[in-house]
Amino acid sequence: MRTLYHLWLCPFARKVRIVLAEKKLPFELELEKVWERRDEFLALNPTGEVPVLIVSGEDENPPLVIADSTAICEYLEETSCGLSLLGENAPERAEIRRLTAWYDLKFQREVTVNLVDEKVSKRFLGLGAPSSSAIRAGHANMSVHLAYIEYLIERRKWLGGESFSMADVSAAAQLSCIDYVDDVPWENFPEAKSWYARVKSRPSMRPILADHIPGIPPPKHYANPDF
Amino acid sequence: MRTLYHLWLCPFARKVRIVLAEKKLPFELELEKVWERRDEFLALNPTGEVPVLIVSGEDENPPLVIADSTAICEYLEETSCGLSLLGENAPERAEIRRLTAWYDLKFQREVTVNLVDEKVSKRFLGLGAPSSSAIRAGHANMSVHLAYIEYLIERRKWLGGESFSMADVSAAAQLSCIDYVDDVPWENFPEAKSWYARVKSRPSMRPILADHIPGIPPPKHYANPDF
Repeated sequence: MRTLYHLWLCPFARKVRIVLAEKKLPFELELEKVWERRDEFLALNPTGEVPVLIVSGEDENPPLVIADSTAICEYLEETSCGLSLLGENAPERAEIRRLTAWYDLKFQREVTVNLVDEKVSKRFLGLGAPSSSAIRAGHANMSVHLAYIEYLIERRKWLGGESFSMADVSAAAQLSCIDYVDDVPWENFPEAKSWYARVKSRPSMRPILADHIPGIPPPKHYANPDF
Repeated sequence: MRTLYHLWLCPFARKVRIVLAEKKLPFELELEKVWERRDEFLALNPTGEVPVLIVSGEDENPPLVIADSTAICEYLEETSCGLSLLGENAPERAEIRRLTAWYDLKFQREVTVNLVDEKVSKRFLGLGAPSSSAIRAGHANMSVHLAYIEYLIERRKWLGGESFSMADVSAAAQLSCIDYVDDVPWENFPEAKSWYARVKSRPSMRPILADHIPGIPPPKHYANPDF
């Protein structure tokens, strides 16, 4: 039995949802309103952040609690059979992990924080109007990142190499959040768009594309693989 | 042949230096002044950040270039024999990776950026006076983190479990930078101090403790294991 604590538009929770689906591992989703700072949740993860994965065995052992999306994804990679999302050998894994960190850290800081946090989280939590300078910075950085996706995809089938990998998962997790607020200029980056269409057509992306945040509907193209 | 591009007081480069020393892997250090944005370095790592590890084989293959401290440390763990810094099984590794992310992300953002970046990087790059509110926040957060180290060390021999691990390496890499600017209130946290004294006495820490930044000498206790 697996339970994943998540939050809408949290790219790190989306990353774990995609990995669980790619590995065909069933799980239940629990929405955790992290801003409520529930004591029971803080006992699971003192950072107070999602995602947190709980793995309960069939035996009497206490459930395993894993916090942090990288720790969770590495755990799932180590313990599940079948499809690897980290490549075949150490140099491939080094390149895939480099790009995973790129999207988890650099893209998150330069784009997602500036667009999703400003437009959605602030409004949701009543923290005032979005900062126009943050949004301008997010848009400018986004174009640099889409150009880098095009650079990679002109040289490889997928972002991290010849196979679909954690690099694609982390990038899609971030981009799907931005696409939900309709802030990706896909038309200017046809190769990046074509890569994302391939990602969207994977069954692991269906639950992500079916997400609907109460009061904030996604744009029409959000769930459509032929957008 | 291994070459590590680093920068003084970069906790992520220190993390890799400690891991290479723990694994007894010889390497050469190259100082990279990242603010100069050298084209040759950007070609190695488009983020423009250190650490970057170059591994040259004895054969004719092109050297392997690895960027991002987590990608580098996972690579060294996978390819070196001997001492493991990630634990013995998947649940242990999940806990060690959770704490590694804690120090790499949370401690870095809440403490190191507020203290080291404000006091050293700003001065070095002529970016003006340190922000007193950032420094106050850094000090307040530091006490919470030292209390968490004490919480962990009352329950375990090392931060991540019964063995010295990446969790200790990441924590020590961050704390050694703060200690260089003499901003750790060790006397208020005797158990955390005693854990750090054990870390400092490891041979892998010697090169870190011998670091001297031109024009910014460390405090006297910085290099002393019996501080």
